[in-house]
Amino acid sequence: MSLDKTTGLLKKAREWWTTKIIDIRPGIIRIKGTPIQDLIGNVSYAHMVWLMTRDDQPTPEQAALLEAALVSAVDHGPQAPSIAISRMAVTCGLPLNGAMASAINVLDDVHGGAGEQCLELFNRIARHPAGLSMDDTVTAVLDEYVAEHGKIIPGYGHRFHPVDPRAIRLLALVDAAAKQGVVRGRYADIGRAVEAALAQRASSKLPMNIDGATAVVYGELGFEPAMARGLFILSRSVGILAHAWEQKQQGGRIKGPMPPDIDYTYTGA
Amino acid sequence: MSLDKTTGLLKKAREWWTTKIIDIRPGIIRIKGTPIQDLIGNVSYAHMVWLMTRDDQPTPEQAALLEAALVSAVDHGPQAPSIAISRMAVTCGLPLNGAMASAINVLDDVHGGAGEQCLELFNRIARHPAGLSMDDTVTAVLDEYVAEHGKIIPGYGHRFHPVDPRAIRLLALVDAAAKQGVVRGRYADIGRAVEAALAQRASSKLPMNIDGATAVVYGELGFEPAMARGLFILSRSVGILAHAWEQKQQGGRIKGPMPPDIDYTYTGA
Amino acid sequence: MSLDKTTGLLKKAREWWTTKIIDIRPGIIRIKGTPIQDLIGNVSYAHMVWLMTRDDQPTPEQAALLEAALVSAVDHGPQAPSIAISRMAVTCGLPLNGAMASAINVLDDVHGGAGEQCLELFNRIARHPAGLSMDDTVTAVLDEYVAEHGKIIPGYGHRFHPVDPRAIRLLALVDAAAKQGVVRGRYADIGRAVEAALAQRASSKLPMNIDGATAVVYGELGFEPAMARGLFILSRSVGILAHAWEQKQQGGRIKGPMPPDIDYTYTGA
Amino acid sequence: MSLDKTTGLLKKAREWWTTKIIDIRPGIIRIKGTPIQDLIGNVSYAHMVWLMTRDDQPTPEQAALLEAALVSAVDHGPQAPSIAISRMAVTCGLPLNGAMASAINVLDDVHGGAGEQCLELFNRIARHPAGLSMDDTVTAVLDEYVAEHGKIIPGYGHRFHPVDPRAIRLLALVDAAAKQGVVRGRYADIGRAVEAALAQRASSKLPMNIDGATAVVYGELGFEPAMARGLFILSRSVGILAHAWEQKQQGGRIKGPMPPDIDYTYTGA
Repeated sequence: MSLDKTTGLLKKAREWWTTKIIDIRPGIIRIKGTPIQDLIGNVSYAHMVWLMTRDDQPTPEQAALLEAALVSAVDHGPQAPSIAISRMAVTCGLPLNGAMASAINVLDDVHGGAGEQCLELFNRIARHPAGLSMDDTVTAVLDEYVAEHGKIIPGYGHRFHPVDPRAIRLLALVDAAAKQGVVRGRYADIGRAVEAALAQRASSKLPMNIDGATAVVYGELGFEPAMARGLFILSRSVGILAHAWEQKQQGGRIKGPMPPDIDYTYTGA
Repeated sequence: MSLDKTTGLLKKAREWWTTKIIDIRPGIIRIKGTPIQDLIGNVSYAHMVWLMTRDDQPTPEQAALLEAALVSAVDHGPQAPSIAISRMAVTCGLPLNGAMASAINVLDDVHGGAGEQCLELFNRIARHPAGLSMDDTVTAVLDEYVAEHGKIIPGYGHRFHPVDPRAIRLLALVDAAAKQGVVRGRYADIGRAVEAALAQRASSKLPMNIDGATAVVYGELGFEPAMARGLFILSRSVGILAHAWEQKQQGGRIKGPMPPDIDYTYTGA
Repeated sequence: MSLDKTTGLLKKAREWWTTKIIDIRPGIIRIKGTPIQDLIGNVSYAHMVWLMTRDDQPTPEQAALLEAALVSAVDHGPQAPSIAISRMAVTCGLPLNGAMASAINVLDDVHGGAGEQCLELFNRIARHPAGLSMDDTVTAVLDEYVAEHGKIIPGYGHRFHPVDPRAIRLLALVDAAAKQGVVRGRYADIGRAVEAALAQRASSKLPMNIDGATAVVYGELGFEPAMARGLFILSRSVGILAHAWEQKQQGGRIKGPMPPDIDYTYTGA
Repeated sequence: MSLDKTTGLLKKAREWWTTKIIDIRPGIIRIKGTPIQDLIGNVSYAHMVWLMTRDDQPTPEQAALLEAALVSAVDHGPQAPSIAISRMAVTCGLPLNGAMASAINVLDDVHGGAGEQCLELFNRIARHPAGLSMDDTVTAVLDEYVAEHGKIIPGYGHRFHPVDPRAIRLLALVDAAAKQGVVRGRYADIGRAVEAALAQRASSKLPMNIDGATAVVYGELGFEPAMARGLFILSRSVGILAHAWEQKQQGGRIKGPMPPDIDYTYTGA
């Protein structure tokens, strides 16, 4: 093969994996241009998440708001399939990485996608052509949304909690941040307008839940909707790890979903 | 069935999933006894990780040291299989949760277990019966370890970095924390003694790497070895997410490990 | 709690996991009503797949056609991300189950969904309101499809093979089965009509590939489109297992996608 | 860079992924040297599994025995964590590939490793230095095994079935194959000798279960122990797929392990 041809192939190989995130040379690791040793001990985990996934950097106040959201969704106990799967996996012999993988995998559209879907809904409202009042905009967008996706509005209502204490706290933090000029408060307004509109429509109240409240936070901070799912995963991973670890210490072998004494129903072929 | 029998079965069902981590009732979520709304915005992500996985709580200084370790290992670029898999997965159509699951799963004994193995080694040295000097203890334990596990000492040496900048920085933070009485500094001593012993044994230098340095941090903070793997996963998950997200924005379909122009070698049946 | 209440709760628990697939009692395992011991040694793997996933049973000839499709897609070498991931996972320390899980996970919409998408396309043609010739129906449905999904037609064309030898063989088996009355041959007709229509449209030829040919087989046998993905997974799992096993025997630690000597491109922050 | 250097790097890249399993060139796919089109429709799925994972080929009778084992372990209902996880995953929004991945992942040492461990035990007996009777060999090896691994003997006893109907059937098939000279019958002898030894030791009977019986089959056919896990996965994947598919048709959202009306026990911080 000619030098031109081999050089061309090698160039292709080198360019097959390109990234703007990290530059590694012997003895050197730079994250978005900053040597890793200048970040370790100087920035928070939340700051690092922001730096790694975006082209800008947060102020300390913005990082703090992101951190509050990351703390809020860590766990919802073993009735959440992600948590139950993590615990079951450990009793099958899996180490923590395997248990976490099987569990994180199920944080898909239905179990882990509500924040992303809610932020998409908020963005649709935020980018609606001007000329309508907020209430009329919300009404128009909700009508569209229900026509496309059905009645379940992501981010509102909870099958277990009549009021979600996490949402209330997060919204209060957003309000405080808005007062200090850390964020604009526009997504908090949108989130509350949707809540008000749903209160008029639904037979039962549908207050904002954790997915709605984190969507407000991520919207205020300028994250893309898809990242709302990614950030939720970083948050819930803490609970998934903690429950795997607790189960490992409890012991147990090949744990099914219910005690073996309760026989499972076969409904006939 | 009698009331006794049904009550007994129900009791078994209720007790099938027991946890000391979280208590959930309608409108109430308590983490280790503290209402979630009192944690959101008041504790850091690192503090929350500690609270969820242990029976005690960190001081702010301890949480800061943990946070430094969580920041240190977020990424090592696409030459790390975990990062490459995350990127490849996205080009196969997976959403962020699926890409993260396939990638986190491979943080197993070899790719993600060195911190855990290193902390086990450190603990063996720390718990060695008294009577020997540190140097003699390290020599004795290393001899044992090599006899059991072979020549690779987890936490030391790096196939790419002659010196690991992350390790140097983390050790400096541990030293500073030891001076302030935040930690005892015992694991830093052990880690350095192992490094010195290896320098005498090996033909080439084997300086402490990121896994060794995080094992020092986790040892100082009192984490169990298995948790070193879990904490590494929380750290590396940030890089896994960031690369999945970057790949998604780059596009690409069914990305193999090398450009398709480079033909793969078949070695004959 | 009253007997009524406890009985009601227990009933709910029993009914939480209901299935028509399997009935298990001490010493007894029935699959769709047949004792497992009457199946073992009497039916083929393909027959068992059919029995487990459908409400009917195959004739031996139908099972043989299904088996041919399951054999056809077992492997496409390490340039397929699923195969590469399986091999990389083993070098990270994962056992076969973990390697297979990380790999199977990526058989998603893009890498593993073409058979499903192609069968949906075929079904749209098959169920098109009568009144048009096959050619006109195909033209109408393809126009619709391109408008909705863009130019890539699942099941046709291959970036590596100008002609896919697996597709030719599978079509020949379907033709033979149609002659013997095992299948109707309707999906073979549709598949060929689509191929002919694409030949007229595309600048380059787009012959039927493995996904198109298996979609023909699964369509002839009456499988739902979603099951085309499931059946592909059962097939490709063989290759994923074989490559994990070969890599395990080859050894290797923390294998990246390319040799470490080829440096990866960093494109600047 | 010089031609020598670039050629050397390219050679390394080409050799980075080497395999004896498959050779792919434009229009050509060879499995262990045989064109894929000569296998499709001519060999069974079980034959293909053998061909892909070994250096030899099965006789039709050997392939049939392998197929019987692959059929035997497809399912054990939703009390098996692998099956429950598959079903739960679908209600979280995962497609079939994702549900199968999360479920297959948990077929680890405890839930999916008994066949492998049992075959290792059988091999230890088979390779025991000559000079002892079978009974004395079994006694010696079991004593060793219990000393190393504890009282649980993989492949014997079942927490649900007093007698495992699958094991009885598989052993009968092995006996028949031994009579016809398809296999030697040596592993069947070993398996029964272990069963007899355990009957003398244990307070309750510990008859051979599915893992023991498949270990007999795989041992007779010359598979390595690690492959016993791989083959079990191919078998159980059928059930995992079938239950995912059934759950998808049943519907359900974010299905926890037990009905939400049964409250989970929190045991206090």
